[in-house]
Amino acid sequence: MTAEHERAEREQAVTDEVLSGLEGAADPRVREVLQSLVRHLHSFAREVRLSEREWETAIAFLTRAGHLTDDRRQEFILLSDVLGLSMLTVAINAPASPTATEATVFGPFFVKDAPEVPLGGDLGRGAAGTPCYVSGQVRAVDGSPLGDARLDVWGADEDGFYDVQYADARSAGRGRLRTAPDGAYRFWTVLPTPYPIPHDGPVGDLLTAAGRGPMRPAHLHFKVAAPGHRTLITHIFMAGDPYLGSDAVFGVKRSLVVEADHHTGGRAPDGSHRQGAWASMHFDLVLAPDDNT
Amino acid sequence: MTAEHERAEREQAVTDEVLSGLEGAADPRVREVLQSLVRHLHSFAREVRLSEREWETAIAFLTRAGHLTDDRRQEFILLSDVLGLSMLTVAINAPASPTATEATVFGPFFVKDAPEVPLGGDLGRGAAGTPCYVSGQVRAVDGSPLGDARLDVWGADEDGFYDVQYADARSAGRGRLRTAPDGAYRFWTVLPTPYPIPHDGPVGDLLTAAGRGPMRPAHLHFKVAAPGHRTLITHIFMAGDPYLGSDAVFGVKRSLVVEADHHTGGRAPDGSHRQGAWASMHFDLVLAPDDNT
Ligand SMILES: [Fe+2]
Ligand SMILES: [Fe+2]
Repeated sequence: MTAEHERAEREQAVTDEVLSGLEGAADPRVREVLQSLVRHLHSFAREVRLSEREWETAIAFLTRAGHLTDDRRQEFILLSDVLGLSMLTVAINAPASPTATEATVFGPFFVKDAPEVPLGGDLGRGAAGTPCYVSGQVRAVDGSPLGDARLDVWGADEDGFYDVQYADARSAGRGRLRTAPDGAYRFWTVLPTPYPIPHDGPVGDLLTAAGRGPMRPAHLHFKVAAPGHRTLITHIFMAGDPYLGSDAVFGVKRSLVVEADHHTGGRAPDGSHRQGAWASMHFDLVLAPDDNT
Repeated sequence: MTAEHERAEREQAVTDEVLSGLEGAADPRVREVLQSLVRHLHSFAREVRLSEREWETAIAFLTRAGHLTDDRRQEFILLSDVLGLSMLTVAINAPASPTATEATVFGPFFVKDAPEVPLGGDLGRGAAGTPCYVSGQVRAVDGSPLGDARLDVWGADEDGFYDVQYADARSAGRGRLRTAPDGAYRFWTVLPTPYPIPHDGPVGDLLTAAGRGPMRPAHLHFKVAAPGHRTLITHIFMAGDPYLGSDAVFGVKRSLVVEADHHTGGRAPDGSHRQGAWASMHFDLVLAPDDNT
């Protein structure tokens, strides 16, 4: 037996011991997930011949990520995002319905219980940027309108920051609303602009080492829920954005790119008279049926 | 094309996009490691059909681990340990010399710059437990003694705790010493006892879910360094320990199990007169040559 063969056997023995140590998991799903994780994690370490220094670097990386993570910063979601695990999870869990609106990454900037905004109201609430009127319809894959559907919307201001990234406790550029009986939704917010994901931490260092930029193309986040339907987590992206081809988190899907109309003054779709620049865009949101109903 | 085939293609497209996004890494080793990590991480997620709720659980797990980790608690090392990644990394980096002392996990309780102890001195320094005299020789694989080799030794007290696990700032059960010109080392400490790894955090929950216990068989940690030689990180384990077959971190190797001698009163090997129970053990440490010399 060659020395390499002996080494391979010794390494496999470690993996086998861990796998058999997981045989006693009470929940078969826990056993399946942990055993698969161990197999793939060990395959990775063997394949790259992981050095002890690299292992230490990984421990230090996770430690820094953990210390940076708090209510306002989620470095582990960013890590999942830049490794494409977030988008892969979205793809794995995508509904079968080909006509449902595609999903994309959740991102780290969602806030539960954002302020309630009336239909047609302004969820910008002081966020800096060009006013933007957004409207569309929420419906089922069979075309039936979904009234009283719950929309959560959140976006960055024109400086590329979400409200939670500011040191003050501001709440702006986000809100919750419900659709009208005909499934229609409409609100004012500020026109999204491209922004870098937070890159002053270990994930930023990883992007730099990987030769990748931190920028995301301009987008507005939606979470849409209606009884009997799969909750949709998605964005709408702005057509023509220079970063559509190099999103740091791989979130772009062609079907989610929208052309915004740019205006100066005049009358907005909701009948209001505008001064200065404003924009408008329209996007329908189609929910897949819930697998469990 | 079947729906399953289309789905597989959509998922593969995510992985391919991430892999090609990593092509620009300036350092070829960074590219190799990150691409391999992405391939295996994505294979794992696809294989288990990772659900969105499971992804959220993983993010919450890492977040908890990060918040628990500080100067005295290292949950990410524990995680690596219980997944067997630490022992696999040890195996991958094991020296080729078959006669060198085997390595095992580093663990989370090492302290840099522990107190210097003279040869034959007491590094227990007040730790609770049965006094234990430990001696042996440090030598090279060709049998030549390694004088002035640097030993770091650390162990738990009889309650199963390392000094750094106590809320006070005590330093006990650890120390640094150097071998005599003939490679001999000797010191007093306390007899190791089995202990549970810290299991009040997410890694403890993982062990519970996996149906595994948190116990480690009794052991004493060694880090041994000498110029021209690979630094050895290992333990000695106590023969007869009930947990030798179920170490929570998979660290046991047969070659590292030592028979301790148990005494009452009498004269110790260093000539001192003892009162009450004490123990002694002997273990030689053989260092592999440094690959880089
Ligand atoms: Fe965003
Ligand atoms: Fe230990």
